[in-house]
Amino acid sequence: MQRDLFTFDLEAVDGKARAGIFHTPHGDLETPVFAPVGTQATVKTLTPVQLEELGATLVLSNTYHLYLRPGADLVAEMGGLHRFMQWPHPMLTDSGGFQVFSLAEMRKVDEDGVTFKSHIDGSTHRFTPEKAVEIQEQLGADIIMAFDECSEPHDRAYVERAMHRTHAWAERCLRAHKRTDQALFGIVQGGIFPDLRENSARVISGMGFPGHAIGGLSVGEEKNDMYAMIEVVNAVLPVEKPRYLMGVGTVEDLLNGIARGIDIFDCVLPTRLARHQSAMTRRGRLNLLNVAHARNPHPIDETCRCYTCRTFTRAYLRHLIVAKEMLAGTLISIHNLYTLVELAKDARRAIQQGCFTDFAENILSQME
Amino acid sequence: MQRDLFTFDLEAVDGKARAGIFHTPHGDLETPVFAPVGTQATVKTLTPVQLEELGATLVLSNTYHLYLRPGADLVAEMGGLHRFMQWPHPMLTDSGGFQVFSLAEMRKVDEDGVTFKSHIDGSTHRFTPEKAVEIQEQLGADIIMAFDECSEPHDRAYVERAMHRTHAWAERCLRAHKRTDQALFGIVQGGIFPDLRENSARVISGMGFPGHAIGGLSVGEEKNDMYAMIEVVNAVLPVEKPRYLMGVGTVEDLLNGIARGIDIFDCVLPTRLARHQSAMTRRGRLNLLNVAHARNPHPIDETCRCYTCRTFTRAYLRHLIVAKEMLAGTLISIHNLYTLVELAKDARRAIQQGCFTDFAENILSQME
Repeated sequence: MQRDLFTFDLEAVDGKARAGIFHTPHGDLETPVFAPVGTQATVKTLTPVQLEELGATLVLSNTYHLYLRPGADLVAEMGGLHRFMQWPHPMLTDSGGFQVFSLAEMRKVDEDGVTFKSHIDGSTHRFTPEKAVEIQEQLGADIIMAFDECSEPHDRAYVERAMHRTHAWAERCLRAHKRTDQALFGIVQGGIFPDLRENSARVISGMGFPGHAIGGLSVGEEKNDMYAMIEVVNAVLPVEKPRYLMGVGTVEDLLNGIARGIDIFDCVLPTRLARHQSAMTRRGRLNLLNVAHARNPHPIDETCRCYTCRTFTRAYLRHLIVAKEMLAGTLISIHNLYTLVELAKDARRAIQQGCFTDFAENILSQME
Repeated sequence: MQRDLFTFDLEAVDGKARAGIFHTPHGDLETPVFAPVGTQATVKTLTPVQLEELGATLVLSNTYHLYLRPGADLVAEMGGLHRFMQWPHPMLTDSGGFQVFSLAEMRKVDEDGVTFKSHIDGSTHRFTPEKAVEIQEQLGADIIMAFDECSEPHDRAYVERAMHRTHAWAERCLRAHKRTDQALFGIVQGGIFPDLRENSARVISGMGFPGHAIGGLSVGEEKNDMYAMIEVVNAVLPVEKPRYLMGVGTVEDLLNGIARGIDIFDCVLPTRLARHQSAMTRRGRLNLLNVAHARNPHPIDETCRCYTCRTFTRAYLRHLIVAKEMLAGTLISIHNLYTLVELAKDARRAIQQGCFTDFAENILSQME
């Protein structure tokens, strides 16, 4: 593993919040950063040009989905994920662990790996740590993830077993990983149990990964439990490496995560909400199907500078929704992703100026 | 009617093919031109910026659909169709006639107008020539259409009755039309009967419309009948006014229409085919779902300069189709619309250079 490619420069620290630059083979990533999710090698309804225009710098794609369809060998044959989906900037793939445990059917876990049935056609497959790394090497993202077991967060006995398995699998991923142009991140598990989280953070951060992720949160636990776990873990993780909170993406959670030292976020929520007519703003959510918007000549958010808000009225967006026009999903996705991407950028500026606490409190106090 | 706004300058004639400029309040329209269809105030899956980038200069929207949803009064309240859908260039609305006769349920025609039930909710509505003009004045397109009766083209008795009604309605539309910033076009009907078509062209062109349309073609008749009808009608229509062939949009039909003196075309076909995985090229159609494309690293058309062909492989497009990703519809729509928009532009250049016949024959001879 050639670490020099993936230097992380901490530019400013404000309380526990951090502004940094993570260097990758596809460009420098300014943190904090929110990554749109392109599950099947596309951020749903958007072209790469639209993603660039809304300010996205990092895109995540899902190993489990791409392995099943179109196949990692096909993506490799087409020159890797960057070329396949034409996203020339930094990319991240997850390990498939989360999807195997949440989407796939009839999974059987043993110490060596997981056997599961595809949610698409019921065919049987097996992921091991080595296989998850091999697939991610074929996909070729800049940041790839160790294979982990994502357990239900409240069942202590299961959480502890899954955590130990995750640690053993992390070691095997490190040994299996050959490509020097990818940063392999380790994942901390441990449910909502502070002692397990602390243990996991120590074990994982002792393995020498170039970056660390916190997995198994935002899966149904209380917000306060999530924030407490982030604090426990980040007190252990080394400051000089990037920290990625997996699957988290609301205005509130981004601000609370950044305040506790998180650098990278991703979530399907902005695009999923968009396809269900819900617009995210710094003051809360807006159901654009509401008849109150039918004759509203204003944009979703007067202060927002995204293409959608610079161009279209709520009346037009509601018309598209009522008429079942796909453009509604596109335009609201642009807005929702811009909201989180821009929030992370504004947070970065506030950290650099030493006023992150005021910045975050000002937004959180105005949320409905 | 203030005609000066809508001057039509014939720049070049090559055989019967014409290159012109139609001046409108929202800019000069270079002809021949192909207009993408934005039925419900949106060209399906595309933003106005994407439409501009693919070279579209004229967009059509449907009076019947917008009248039912969101309502012409709402569009007017939002500043008209150009502002509502943010298309600042020339626009055209049809009269609602074709949709009333093809989409609406339980229609009853009398000499005064048509009573019909909405295909959306079954509610009862009535269109008269005066109503169709009133709605189109509320929508505010640059080019609007007289209300016509679009009959089945082979039943001579019905075609003749419908034609006479269309003539009477055209007179009433002219009298009802008040806005001076819109060009009202008359529509020639007459099915596949040369004598009726000639009669209709004489009557309609005698009324003083600033432009003329040929309706009731491309509705199931033989290609040769369609081409013959265009020839009969264009032999009568005055050369100094623009001619619009309604609802026609294939590579073959554009070339054959231009060769016979047509200036304006529109059709839903490019976007509808796109949503059914079919790509239009100058050499024929391509079903991108075909497994032959699964590992094809080439674009739809190596010679095409659209965003989709400059950027994505057939393998990627097929993956999006198989994975049921909406981006497939967007990217193929961009390609299909570009194919027809660019074909009309190339035809214009060929006419200006006096080599349209060679240009058209060269393409038609290579079609599969």
